[in-house]
Amino acid sequence: MSPSPFWSPRVHGLVPYVPGEQPRLANLVKLNTNENPYPPSPRVAAAIQAAVQQGLQLYPDPDSTLLRQAVAAHHGLAADQVFVGNGSDEVLAHAFFAFFQQRGAPLLLPDVTYSFYQVYCGLYGIPMEVVPLADGLRVDVEALVAPAGVEVAGVVIANPNAPTGIGLPLASIERLLQMHPGRVVLVDEAYVDFGGENAVGLVAQYPNLLVVHTLSKSRALAGLRVGVAFGQSPLIDALERVKNSFNSYPLDRLAQAGATAAYEDRAYFDEKRAAVMHSREGLSLQLEDLGFEVLPSQANFVFARHPSHDAAGLAARLRERGVLVRHFRQPRIAQYLRISIGTPQQCDALLQALSEILR
Amino acid sequence: MSPSPFWSPRVHGLVPYVPGEQPRLANLVKLNTNENPYPPSPRVAAAIQAAVQQGLQLYPDPDSTLLRQAVAAHHGLAADQVFVGNGSDEVLAHAFFAFFQQRGAPLLLPDVTYSFYQVYCGLYGIPMEVVPLADGLRVDVEALVAPAGVEVAGVVIANPNAPTGIGLPLASIERLLQMHPGRVVLVDEAYVDFGGENAVGLVAQYPNLLVVHTLSKSRALAGLRVGVAFGQSPLIDALERVKNSFNSYPLDRLAQAGATAAYEDRAYFDEKRAAVMHSREGLSLQLEDLGFEVLPSQANFVFARHPSHDAAGLAARLRERGVLVRHFRQPRIAQYLRISIGTPQQCDALLQALSEILR
Repeated sequence: MSPSPFWSPRVHGLVPYVPGEQPRLANLVKLNTNENPYPPSPRVAAAIQAAVQQGLQLYPDPDSTLLRQAVAAHHGLAADQVFVGNGSDEVLAHAFFAFFQQRGAPLLLPDVTYSFYQVYCGLYGIPMEVVPLADGLRVDVEALVAPAGVEVAGVVIANPNAPTGIGLPLASIERLLQMHPGRVVLVDEAYVDFGGENAVGLVAQYPNLLVVHTLSKSRALAGLRVGVAFGQSPLIDALERVKNSFNSYPLDRLAQAGATAAYEDRAYFDEKRAAVMHSREGLSLQLEDLGFEVLPSQANFVFARHPSHDAAGLAARLRERGVLVRHFRQPRIAQYLRISIGTPQQCDALLQALSEILR
Repeated sequence: MSPSPFWSPRVHGLVPYVPGEQPRLANLVKLNTNENPYPPSPRVAAAIQAAVQQGLQLYPDPDSTLLRQAVAAHHGLAADQVFVGNGSDEVLAHAFFAFFQQRGAPLLLPDVTYSFYQVYCGLYGIPMEVVPLADGLRVDVEALVAPAGVEVAGVVIANPNAPTGIGLPLASIERLLQMHPGRVVLVDEAYVDFGGENAVGLVAQYPNLLVVHTLSKSRALAGLRVGVAFGQSPLIDALERVKNSFNSYPLDRLAQAGATAAYEDRAYFDEKRAAVMHSREGLSLQLEDLGFEVLPSQANFVFARHPSHDAAGLAARLRERGVLVRHFRQPRIAQYLRISIGTPQQCDALLQALSEILR
């Protein structure tokens, strides 16, 4: 589509995010968008059914009060330390708007990370200082600790990072928080429930910490679009101000009900994330047996490369066999595949297909 | 909440929208937020149930393809002339971003209209030229036709207007489109299905027309959060660029399925909107019998004032009797009540309560 004179100037420069493929074909082994291979807690369907009966003709609670209370209770916080949005992508967008705009200074972020961060910067005109990962594709914390006297708009990292799966210890998060006391440090923990160290416990101590979670991964609700932010109440209040200037009711009745039910079933949550972590360890070893180099993952995916096979070619040949994985045509990671952890059956299908291809 | 140094400068100046009260008390006669008094088509619940079974652990279609096709088919358009979002508020927000920003000229809008328009201008730093309504609280079309040589960023109107309920004929919309050929004219038709003249048929003719609809009113899905925009494909493409730079998946699986089912049941839609219009005519006459002055409404609400009773006082006394209506503390309309059209039983309860109060 060519540009139009009706577009606002900023629209011409946008470089939108491109999500992983969501094919409507059945029978694919879909390991490309880090969905949970298990369905959500059975309580979710029951709660949705009840919410449908209550009447969809009425607006939802604009403040998602019951959901925020359930999330706060799960994490031992107060409800005014919890913000919810239409997927963690919306939560992140509002956070970029609320904290990183008009600072006259760049936002610090790693070069290899969730690629939507750069898109938000484009959307809101936020300058960026892109910091290369260190050796082993690890986030370089010291490089994100700005030299004294240099202004920054803030810092954003994913922990564990995507698409590498590598996590930072909480001590590194604290160092970032301490070295940027006047700016928000946004820690996107989309994948933290699969073995990472959760920074929600630091919220009470650091007024500049904003932690973002999603229900799309560990709570198996990618189809319901719910994300969460945690922070001290002045940060949450900023997000509320932006949200209430954008859309009063971002979470529909069914999303609020289903998400609340998911948080209330802690046993199911713990069981399924343990199953995913167990499969990840097995899959990593078996990929290594096939000659892959596998980065140490704390997420529900692995990031792996084969020393003698081109990653794009492998992805294409897997697709021919009905197995979808994600490949990024991006410097430094172009030879890696990001493979979501499936059920044991899906992992076996992947390994079987790879064995045939590599034979 | 006092401001925080962590807030972006723009956050300090935001004046968020305040939605109508969504009480969690049962047994209220809720005529304050223009919801449909009838439930949605029974096909909606069935479609949601089926979508839950398909698996909430998988992401939804980011492009809402089936929904856009159903909406396009309903209106005789192509799917690339249809944009969908998380409620018409999100659609409007993206439209303000996409078309009215950075124009070096003000957006034209009426002084009395949906108050979220001014909030979006604050959010995106869009200057405004607020044009007073004409006598009888009618939109002054000639005042929205800018004098020759004066630049504007665009025009936004609600048709029928809110909270007056008064509609403009299509000839007036065409005049606005013709007099602003270089800028987008946004026509928010949230209430058009209750007797207004729909401008969707003008899309083919005017490249500068964007029409916005909602499923919250005539399709009884306020609880599901779905809004729609219609325009020629360059305008829709701009909205897609903004949406894909903000949130790839704004509509969850259940909203897509439920909204599609609602569009597919045209008979139910026609039956229920006819019932609402019928109740509106009866209610208007009965309010006049009680001494109210009632503006001619093409919406699912009436806007009425009593010559000898203060509107804020009436609203408070109705609330004491369990009847919620909306009152706006705003110049020119502070003596009006906006009353949503309920079921015949709800209308009777309102009239009964008013009779007691006015006695």
